Amino acid sequence: MKTFRVAVLPGDGIGPEVMTESLRVLEAAGKKYDIAMKFEQALIGGAAIDATGSPLPDETLNLCRSADAVLLGSVGGPKWDNLPPKQRPELGGLLAIRKALKLYANLRPVRLYPALFDQCPVRIPSGSGVDLLTVRELSSGIYFGEPKELDESHGLDTMLYEAETVSRIAKVAFEAAARRRGTLTSVDKANVLSASILWRNVVAKMGADYPSVELNHMYVDNAAMQLILNPGGFDVLVTGNLFGDILSDESAALAGSLGMLPSASIGESVNLFEPSGGSAPDIAGKGIANPIAQILSGAMMFEYSFDRVDAARAVEAAIEAALNDGVRTGDVAGGASSVGTRQMADAVIKRL
Amino acid sequence: MKTFRVAVLPGDGIGPEVMTESLRVLEAAGKKYDIAMKFEQALIGGAAIDATGSPLPDETLNLCRSADAVLLGSVGGPKWDNLPPKQRPELGGLLAIRKALKLYANLRPVRLYPALFDQCPVRIPSGSGVDLLTVRELSSGIYFGEPKELDESHGLDTMLYEAETVSRIAKVAFEAAARRRGTLTSVDKANVLSASILWRNVVAKMGADYPSVELNHMYVDNAAMQLILNPGGFDVLVTGNLFGDILSDESAALAGSLGMLPSASIGESVNLFEPSGGSAPDIAGKGIANPIAQILSGAMMFEYSFDRVDAARAVEAAIEAALNDGVRTGDVAGGASSVGTRQMADAVIKRL
Ligand SMILES: CC(C)[C@H](C(=O)O)[C@@H](O)C(=O)O
Ligand SMILES: CC(C)[C@H](C(=O)O)[C@@H](O)C(=O)O
Repeated sequence: MKTFRVAVLPGDGIGPEVMTESLRVLEAAGKKYDIAMKFEQALIGGAAIDATGSPLPDETLNLCRSADAVLLGSVGGPKWDNLPPKQRPELGGLLAIRKALKLYANLRPVRLYPALFDQCPVRIPSGSGVDLLTVRELSSGIYFGEPKELDESHGLDTMLYEAETVSRIAKVAFEAAARRRGTLTSVDKANVLSASILWRNVVAKMGADYPSVELNHMYVDNAAMQLILNPGGFDVLVTGNLFGDILSDESAALAGSLGMLPSASIGESVNLFEPSGGSAPDIAGKGIANPIAQILSGAMMFEYSFDRVDAARAVEAAIEAALNDGVRTGDVAGGASSVGTRQMADAVIKRL
Repeated sequence: MKTFRVAVLPGDGIGPEVMTESLRVLEAAGKKYDIAMKFEQALIGGAAIDATGSPLPDETLNLCRSADAVLLGSVGGPKWDNLPPKQRPELGGLLAIRKALKLYANLRPVRLYPALFDQCPVRIPSGSGVDLLTVRELSSGIYFGEPKELDESHGLDTMLYEAETVSRIAKVAFEAAARRRGTLTSVDKANVLSASILWRNVVAKMGADYPSVELNHMYVDNAAMQLILNPGGFDVLVTGNLFGDILSDESAALAGSLGMLPSASIGESVNLFEPSGGSAPDIAGKGIANPIAQILSGAMMFEYSFDRVDAARAVEAAIEAALNDGVRTGDVAGGASSVGTRQMADAVIKRL
């Protein structure tokens, strides 16, 4: 049996504590489903700055490059907010590792568990639900386009999309839609932006290759509104780096808590899995953070890097069972009694 | 008594019908509050394309330039969607008039009327409400930055902010916040974009001139989430052209219907007032569109172009009274019985 080598980067804030608990769950699932894993820890973000001076040490990057998958916690916190931007945990750590590992597709599923229906801040028509997937382009767009300029009198960024980059992400999205409910919404601002006109043309053309997928195009301003008015109307959304950042966080609000939401970033050779939420410095170290986002990120690793859908579904089912039994961390307890990070993980393990 | 010359551009879709009704309300309010107005109509958008070949004829622009204020309906529709982008109603009409009139500040208030509390798709904690104002920079950013490039293999746009442009819009926002509840949230993506770092620096520096205003900075992804999780937490938001486009439409969802929402665009010499929503081609010509957004845009004209806060407040109060009495167009009736565009306007006039 192959042993999967997993680079584990707990990072900052709640990262380390939710990582510790999620690894226990993954170990238990691995035992049950015969998945052998070797976890190798490394530093990233503020933790790496404090120890080495760099938010993404070479050692970390080398480990990730040689691993079968990367599990990330979260990076950043007030302690490092006054460093020059490129040395901060976000730009120098998170964006740098995305770039170095050539991660190009960020998958952010948002599912409202029936048990958490009352935690959804949006009134969902009864009988419907929320179960959508944002496919965000992660390697290009205004995050990385050159030139970037900054002085006292002006700041400038470049939004660039090349047809090949758009095809690559569109393919991921069409295939995800074909495996799900068969509807793909491509989000752009083609009434204003040239990069969006290119985007729309490439996606529309690819639509012909996927006759089973119903493709529609939506402007980003309208999408931001429709996510509130009719979130159940979305299946898969595909969009650029910046719009994906905004819309995936917006849709995250629908799940009741950021603490519920995993993400997978698909790369050219290795994939990275991390919670959608941030490092939540305000609750770090208290043992109360919701570990589910981190655990579900591990489930996505089973599915996307180890091709073990069985184990992924089992972890998800165990989480759902725990929630159905009323086990909740504070963020999704709606004021009722709640458990800590460790007990939440225990509850999931028990139901595996 | 001065007679204000108002350029009236009904545009496309529901534009003409809501414009007609709103002018009746403004006439009535003008009579009551001694505001003399002369309305002069001109073409814009698809209507102008059909009649003249151009979405923004010179004649229209000349009229607007010589007027005391511009009232716009809405532009665009499927009929013109296959024209080349720059000849379409949106780019060639709306964006072109914004540029020609040097409109730089777009004010988009969103208020959830108590009578429409049940129409809000987001669960608002009882006792709180939604009453926020997005101040969107309208003259710059990625909408107008050069270069723009487009060919078969790539699309490119430039997001540019200059310190002076940011100061100008920040001043509008600080002053609005000082007149309202005293809280200003500046929204950017300063952890990634150079234009945002400049933006944040300029806004932060200006904060010192407004000690009575509480200034905070928020990333756009978080703002998109907080607008759902805690919309009552916002007073004034100030942000760039693209983020303002997205967030103001998102926040529009909170009002129950786009049909409720006006906007004002402040220019270097003349201001323009238009509903936040679009031309709604699906319901155009049926006499059922909600005229309130257009009427409230007229109230903003009273306030911002004629300096007549008294008349503005009176129109707003008459609308509120009509809603409280249960008079509603279909979009905000929640399935209960509803009235048409004309009756809604009549109900407002009656309560003036
Ligand atoms: C921290 C930040 C640079 C990052 C992004 O904008 O991509 C984050 O918001 C995310 O979505 O992962
Ligand atoms: C029609 C479009 C170009 C326009 C914009 O993006 O500014 C619209 O969405 C708006 O907000 O007024």
